[in-house]
Amino acid sequence: MENMERADLLEQWRELLAVKDLRALKAALTEANEVDAAEFMAELDLERTVLLFRMLPKEVASDVFTNLEPEKQETIISSITDREITELVEELYVDDAVDMLEELPASVVTRVLKNASSGTRKVINQFLNYPDNSVGSIMTAEVTDLKKSMTVAQAIARVRERGEDSESIYICYVTDNRRMLEGVITLRELLVAKDDQLVEEVMSNDVIVAYTTEDQEEAVQRIMKYDFLALPVVDQEGRLVGIVTVDDVMDVMEEEATEDIEKMAAITPTDKPYLKMTPFEIWKARIPWLMLLMISATFTGLIIASFESALARWVALTAFIPMLMDTGGNTGSQASVTVIRAISIGDLEFSDLPRVLWKELRVAFLCAVTLGVVNFLKIQLIDIALLGNTNVTTAVAAVVCLTLAFTVICAKLVGCCLPMLAKKLGFDPAVMASPFITTIVDALSLVIYFQIANHLLGI
Amino acid sequence: MENMERADLLEQWRELLAVKDLRALKAALTEANEVDAAEFMAELDLERTVLLFRMLPKEVASDVFTNLEPEKQETIISSITDREITELVEELYVDDAVDMLEELPASVVTRVLKNASSGTRKVINQFLNYPDNSVGSIMTAEVTDLKKSMTVAQAIARVRERGEDSESIYICYVTDNRRMLEGVITLRELLVAKDDQLVEEVMSNDVIVAYTTEDQEEAVQRIMKYDFLALPVVDQEGRLVGIVTVDDVMDVMEEEATEDIEKMAAITPTDKPYLKMTPFEIWKARIPWLMLLMISATFTGLIIASFESALARWVALTAFIPMLMDTGGNTGSQASVTVIRAISIGDLEFSDLPRVLWKELRVAFLCAVTLGVVNFLKIQLIDIALLGNTNVTTAVAAVVCLTLAFTVICAKLVGCCLPMLAKKLGFDPAVMASPFITTIVDALSLVIYFQIANHLLGI
Repeated sequence: MENMERADLLEQWRELLAVKDLRALKAALTEANEVDAAEFMAELDLERTVLLFRMLPKEVASDVFTNLEPEKQETIISSITDREITELVEELYVDDAVDMLEELPASVVTRVLKNASSGTRKVINQFLNYPDNSVGSIMTAEVTDLKKSMTVAQAIARVRERGEDSESIYICYVTDNRRMLEGVITLRELLVAKDDQLVEEVMSNDVIVAYTTEDQEEAVQRIMKYDFLALPVVDQEGRLVGIVTVDDVMDVMEEEATEDIEKMAAITPTDKPYLKMTPFEIWKARIPWLMLLMISATFTGLIIASFESALARWVALTAFIPMLMDTGGNTGSQASVTVIRAISIGDLEFSDLPRVLWKELRVAFLCAVTLGVVNFLKIQLIDIALLGNTNVTTAVAAVVCLTLAFTVICAKLVGCCLPMLAKKLGFDPAVMASPFITTIVDALSLVIYFQIANHLLGI
Repeated sequence: MENMERADLLEQWRELLAVKDLRALKAALTEANEVDAAEFMAELDLERTVLLFRMLPKEVASDVFTNLEPEKQETIISSITDREITELVEELYVDDAVDMLEELPASVVTRVLKNASSGTRKVINQFLNYPDNSVGSIMTAEVTDLKKSMTVAQAIARVRERGEDSESIYICYVTDNRRMLEGVITLRELLVAKDDQLVEEVMSNDVIVAYTTEDQEEAVQRIMKYDFLALPVVDQEGRLVGIVTVDDVMDVMEEEATEDIEKMAAITPTDKPYLKMTPFEIWKARIPWLMLLMISATFTGLIIASFESALARWVALTAFIPMLMDTGGNTGSQASVTVIRAISIGDLEFSDLPRVLWKELRVAFLCAVTLGVVNFLKIQLIDIALLGNTNVTTAVAAVVCLTLAFTVICAKLVGCCLPMLAKKLGFDPAVMASPFITTIVDALSLVIYFQIANHLLGI
């Protein structure tokens, strides 16, 4: 229903454009949500895009511009005059300007910066220098700052006057003359306070902050923990330099979850949406891990090769290899993926390792017994009774089920330890997921299999 | 640094409690962030928890209460008087009250509802009835609603007066006398408007809404798309019944990502954090899929069993089975996980299937050629030249590498199709991930292997 209405809206605008009623189209787009307007602009050819962009009021045009794809932004920038660039850049929020510049070719970046005011250029350059994935790289510069000595009425007046400029006006920060952060006050607290109270009396001194150089995930976890709409960002001296807002944090959350999922599936993460990637780019993101894992399967091959003559005599054993390897891989992945996710949402730390080990050991024991018993029954009922496979004896069933049980226990322990060790050593725990664990557990399960077969069957 | 300061804070409070300076502790907790205060309360025994809970001002006590674990909430509810329960329930936001009631035992729920005012009870009961994962189940009832005919000054006055009661005052909704939604206006727009303008002139008529019965993920995607702080929730008749705020949406995002990851790893999702689950609960979440996948590995076993005599003659072939199965599984998982994630963040729909298939086919071809060639070289260099394995001939190498190439192509196609088909059929695409794909691809790769071996080696 909702999506239908949105589609209708776009249809209406298309018709206005078709009949060349630009006046009505301008009015409609000015009133519309900028995300929808950008969706509409995305469909148009260059000439019409620039025409509409020029027709819209400045603030609306810049809001729509922010929501366009980088390629579209580039075509617009290349088609407008220097003067129009100046107006656009001054109108954009610093974080949006920086996001745009990071996607543009160098020559266009130079032209944009040349046309920005010197103040804007300085801030943009500073922001462009924050490392990827740092809090600095996702913050914006526009903050509503108040002084302790203001009255509530003065503070509200300042918020009203700054309202257009500041990305988040709902949380205000109180700074001293050196921009050191002294307090925080929400607009709601200001509004329910009495007009003649001082900001100092109403504000909270307990300000929870983020640092420019911190990992962006830290800011995400902090904003989620406290249910804030924004976090103030300070430099190492404690001076207020920007703000991270909840909408940026949500984008980071989605990206980080996607990255974790990709790493767990042995894919090198990229920022691009799937449908925008070329087959060659997808291949580049996927082939390194496939290659590495394929080569490391040489070990499992060697283990099997060294027991080739035994397998030739006990042919029934070969048939159970895929089941043992898959079950080992699956149990190990369950443990590793659970631990990786718990680490990444801040539920687990390295110091929890003993608790995790003890918990996984008990889970592993329960799984080992259940799977071992069920598999023993399955072999008796299906392989021996139903299919009448004479190569499968009760001794073979015992070897298979004991191997299964030991493999499950090893797999769970390997699966929970490796991500935590990776975290401790400063690697990304997410790469210790299914494919990696599977490769290790495969080798383990074969070694266990042939050891037990050797003892029980004398292969 | 940040976390250190937070730890210091808790340490200070512990000292105040140790020296029984309750006055200072009360003052400190009242001023503190409620999340930190709740973290502190969580450590205390029952008697002290209730003592502090009673000592704090009502609004602070209820904010802290909201942030406590369900078990702690239950012990407090069980220790306070009916009158105190009434005060607490009226003070809580409806969504927090509902979250609490969903975790409490039935007898305690009855006692809480008995002590709520009849209006609150009615709303709570209505909210408790919304299905799990629906927008209704995450919304809250407290909305700031305005009328078209108000002036901006009157509207601001109403926001200031309602400020304490409403969970989100930063977005106001304009309704008519039948509570039909007519417009939306942000507090920022109100504040930058002139006092004597009418709400009708300043508000936007283009309201983007969510429906009580919609899936919560729809609301998440909509709030992210438009960078809103909240979405109004309407019933089927279009009447405003509540609001979904960005903090609730972030919790949903995190939960949904965790659920997707768990399903991809063949784990039945649960709400509980890992460290809070008993080994038995973890076992229950993990064993069904392990069992199912183990039993379905019977097929791979049967395929191998039917070629047992051939394998006994061509012993070298067995050694490559793990590598072929793992590589097939890994390539298939890459495709399925990429597609599952793209579906769940709204980047892909079923209608994109032809584009996805064409893209994956090209990626598969690139991967197949690379892996096939590298593996052929690896066998020549390592297995034949370095290890001198006389069982491995160039013909065997050709069989292995051709199988590898065909398996990779099949795996990629299966991996991208199954999640999209699952989505189309109304199943959860996430269960079509690694373990499931691996089981299918295992069987496929063996069939391909023996077919090719049959043609080239005449097994």
